[in-house]
Amino acid sequence: MALLSPSSTRFLCKNPNPTRGDRAIASSLRRAPSSVVSPRSKPFSLAISSRSPTRRCSASLAESPIVAAGSRFQLEDVIEAQQFDRDILNEIFEVAHQMEEIEKSSTGSAILKGYLMATLFYEPSTRTRLSFESAMKRLGGEVLTTENAREFSSAAKGETLEDTIRTVEGYADIIVLRHFESGAARRAASTASIPVINAGDGPGQHPTQALLDVYTIKREIGRLDGITLGLVGDLANGRTVRSLAYLIAKYQNIKIYFVSPEVVKMKDDIKDYLTAMGVEWEESSDLLEVASKCDVVYQTRIQKERFGERVDLYEAARGKYIVDKVVLEVLPKHAVIMHPLPRLDEITVDVDGDPRAAYFRQAKNGLYIRMALLKLLLLGW
Amino acid sequence: MALLSPSSTRFLCKNPNPTRGDRAIASSLRRAPSSVVSPRSKPFSLAISSRSPTRRCSASLAESPIVAAGSRFQLEDVIEAQQFDRDILNEIFEVAHQMEEIEKSSTGSAILKGYLMATLFYEPSTRTRLSFESAMKRLGGEVLTTENAREFSSAAKGETLEDTIRTVEGYADIIVLRHFESGAARRAASTASIPVINAGDGPGQHPTQALLDVYTIKREIGRLDGITLGLVGDLANGRTVRSLAYLIAKYQNIKIYFVSPEVVKMKDDIKDYLTAMGVEWEESSDLLEVASKCDVVYQTRIQKERFGERVDLYEAARGKYIVDKVVLEVLPKHAVIMHPLPRLDEITVDVDGDPRAAYFRQAKNGLYIRMALLKLLLLGW
Amino acid sequence: MALLSPSSTRFLCKNPNPTRGDRAIASSLRRAPSSVVSPRSKPFSLAISSRSPTRRCSASLAESPIVAAGSRFQLEDVIEAQQFDRDILNEIFEVAHQMEEIEKSSTGSAILKGYLMATLFYEPSTRTRLSFESAMKRLGGEVLTTENAREFSSAAKGETLEDTIRTVEGYADIIVLRHFESGAARRAASTASIPVINAGDGPGQHPTQALLDVYTIKREIGRLDGITLGLVGDLANGRTVRSLAYLIAKYQNIKIYFVSPEVVKMKDDIKDYLTAMGVEWEESSDLLEVASKCDVVYQTRIQKERFGERVDLYEAARGKYIVDKVVLEVLPKHAVIMHPLPRLDEITVDVDGDPRAAYFRQAKNGLYIRMALLKLLLLGW
Repeated sequence: MALLSPSSTRFLCKNPNPTRGDRAIASSLRRAPSSVVSPRSKPFSLAISSRSPTRRCSASLAESPIVAAGSRFQLEDVIEAQQFDRDILNEIFEVAHQMEEIEKSSTGSAILKGYLMATLFYEPSTRTRLSFESAMKRLGGEVLTTENAREFSSAAKGETLEDTIRTVEGYADIIVLRHFESGAARRAASTASIPVINAGDGPGQHPTQALLDVYTIKREIGRLDGITLGLVGDLANGRTVRSLAYLIAKYQNIKIYFVSPEVVKMKDDIKDYLTAMGVEWEESSDLLEVASKCDVVYQTRIQKERFGERVDLYEAARGKYIVDKVVLEVLPKHAVIMHPLPRLDEITVDVDGDPRAAYFRQAKNGLYIRMALLKLLLLGW
Repeated sequence: MALLSPSSTRFLCKNPNPTRGDRAIASSLRRAPSSVVSPRSKPFSLAISSRSPTRRCSASLAESPIVAAGSRFQLEDVIEAQQFDRDILNEIFEVAHQMEEIEKSSTGSAILKGYLMATLFYEPSTRTRLSFESAMKRLGGEVLTTENAREFSSAAKGETLEDTIRTVEGYADIIVLRHFESGAARRAASTASIPVINAGDGPGQHPTQALLDVYTIKREIGRLDGITLGLVGDLANGRTVRSLAYLIAKYQNIKIYFVSPEVVKMKDDIKDYLTAMGVEWEESSDLLEVASKCDVVYQTRIQKERFGERVDLYEAARGKYIVDKVVLEVLPKHAVIMHPLPRLDEITVDVDGDPRAAYFRQAKNGLYIRMALLKLLLLGW
Repeated sequence: MALLSPSSTRFLCKNPNPTRGDRAIASSLRRAPSSVVSPRSKPFSLAISSRSPTRRCSASLAESPIVAAGSRFQLEDVIEAQQFDRDILNEIFEVAHQMEEIEKSSTGSAILKGYLMATLFYEPSTRTRLSFESAMKRLGGEVLTTENAREFSSAAKGETLEDTIRTVEGYADIIVLRHFESGAARRAASTASIPVINAGDGPGQHPTQALLDVYTIKREIGRLDGITLGLVGDLANGRTVRSLAYLIAKYQNIKIYFVSPEVVKMKDDIKDYLTAMGVEWEESSDLLEVASKCDVVYQTRIQKERFGERVDLYEAARGKYIVDKVVLEVLPKHAVIMHPLPRLDEITVDVDGDPRAAYFRQAKNGLYIRMALLKLLLLGW
């Protein structure tokens, strides 16, 4: 990540926490060609930079869009799990924890009063959408919703995502984008002069899910170093387990067990990455043995749509590793069961009542993580 | 209805009007298995109980989820017309009347500021949804909307309603559910730790419609005892007329005329119930004669979809009893014409201008009833 | 336009800026037949009148629904471009300019706090919907959204637009209507006792687009008299260019060039109107020559759907007049390029970075125009 020193920063952008007025003035400047023509003008690797949180003050800084506010990194877009290092994760989790307090307080919060979030969903994901919209409203902000942007009349007529983003950025202060195409969020962020959060782009990234998963481990187990994880189910196609493996590898003394039907095994890229990061990992076909050693059993759904016409293979894979009361019997008292939801029957409902069933708390943590990100992107640290 | 005495109540739940903070603390307690595993743990008959209005304070009271706040009943969920007795109806109507004042005042209200309502609609019903959302916003509250929850990505993937509810309850303070399956609202209420309002579940219940119908009679005629009603149209399939007959039977000296084509006559269950309740009822094929004796003529739409391929039967049934200017001529001056809407031509448009045409005022009363219920469920009396 | 004098006005409606309470009292009056039965009772020519801005105070004035507040005209509905004269346009633009300041200010505005706008969209138009909803929320108001009113359960069951409007007007303070039928907005406005804004009705009108186009010329060029315009592309079917030609003809010394493929030439009605208004116009097939003389080049999309199976004709028409860097070379320094969006490739993306590319600023001006209209319709001048 390229950084300017704090002193040069102050020169480039005097106001690390611009008011909406400042930002509007900046964004109303006619853009120079270089800042608009090409999405490549804002390389993704700068998505976390030390720029002003709202980025609008850099509208006139097309060639050097990097600004530091004090000595802390600034979030500018949330595009993929890879953009987060340990320090940034810790800072986000700290803010998320503050958000828990705010959500539970009787007075609520109005820190985002006057801010508008546009949820631009090109494929349905009600759970994710409601979570973001609840997060925005719990902080006093307002929302413009598009549940089915794929039928966005303009998109249907052939408008590019870039043109849509350039229109919507005039109506809102932040865009939450769900798209069916891998890489769409990065393209949107390259175009937008306001922050963009990736709420899932096709088979690609779903970084807020990855953040809430790691945050849940921290909240439930109390630490992130020295964790033993069992990743269970569809490890080949599930982007959640892949992102989780990626992020947790940034911590010390991690041990990961992979437990999955042969047809949906974890792929080599993640295994190689873990090895390179010094993470111990092992494949196992014995869920009970793995469960007895884990701090976290992370179960996932076997996705029928991945098996095409081979329903027989799907049925075999689906029934193979079920988290049920028998698993609970061997699971350590302090351990938890997680699941990104929705679940079918890969966790039986009689597990739900056990205090170690953490998946609905995990879903709730998605709210706190999204509140934290909205706060950080719009107001900074 | 099972009740604890006020004194034991104070022991069980000290704070009858918990702040959002109190509720959040309660709901954040890890649930004991018995409170989560089985939907049966909260019998529906307790849907009106003397528990705390927001119910969250009972999260730790799995075995005795009944709490009284002072000497008044508390609304906890709104699931079906049968849950209301005369006293509760009167109290709801009193609050609804206050809501009329609030809606008309220039200053508006902010009593639900900081509260979030999730409208979870598994089938479209724009009228009902807008009415609820208007109610919430007129009181200063906020809304998370799902216009088409059936395509809720999770539901499409096979998630149970219960799991969806457990996720959504983390994002909102109250859930308004419209579902295509009879009994869905009861299942949702059994699962949720926040209040649930049934906005119609399939051929089953639509209790807020029933409430607004009775409220409209009270507002238009000035009383509920001693009312003569003509129920006209599709009495076999219309849940509104069935619920209205059920509720109005709780009042004194009620007389009901049924006027309907042979194929869609009122069913015996309601007739038997009315007889048992001491309500005088009569079937008639003479709409004019009935209209001349009524305080309320309640017209309904003949539903084409009930006739399958027998379009001839539908056409015959549909044209048989029309409320038009001729009916107005015999209708008493003080009487009113009601209709749950939408109407086709079973009331001619030249009736709309008559002061006795109450159906658009009736629709507006839906707003006041829903404002009242939101207030009662979230803040208590 | 029929007008009463200010003095008679004060008699008819004492309160030119009624509070929500006043309006509710007025609207709660039982309507006399003449005010409800026929949509014809409120002739469209009164859509701009000197009545009270919110019109509710005229509920009891069925025979003379015209009221003046002070000496200024009052907006009551926004239905078609033809309702605006030069004075009213200037006043709207003045308010729109104030709205720019409000939108850019850090404190925002709460002038519409407590007001509810219903967006009733019978066909999708996400861009227009988001623009209106952003406008309402930037002024502190709230929104009830219907993204797909065509599937409005009631409409699907055969309910008339008039009945739908009579229901929705009970839930909101203003209705924004998008409809697939020409004339729908006029019918809605005739029925509603609250203001209606036409957000496009089929092949008919889209007056807020026309307003934002003229406003953009004023903001970009600095004046409206003495403008030379090049209208390019599909001039036969594009309602935006037709409305723009109509409105700009109200100004002095206007010159218009039409540049379009033969199959989609500007129709005679507009040409005849321009001639009658004293506007000089000319058809040309040389885009470069036209561009060199213009203050504004207004490019439009060739609409594939207009060509049916003649894909060859479409392809020929589509490629004929492209705004690209070559056009920029001859375009005067002070001139601008406009486009109603969405665009396909009739403006190449390498034009976007040029300061004279005004189309995204044009889209943003839609926000200011809609903020201005909401303010004027709900609060008056």
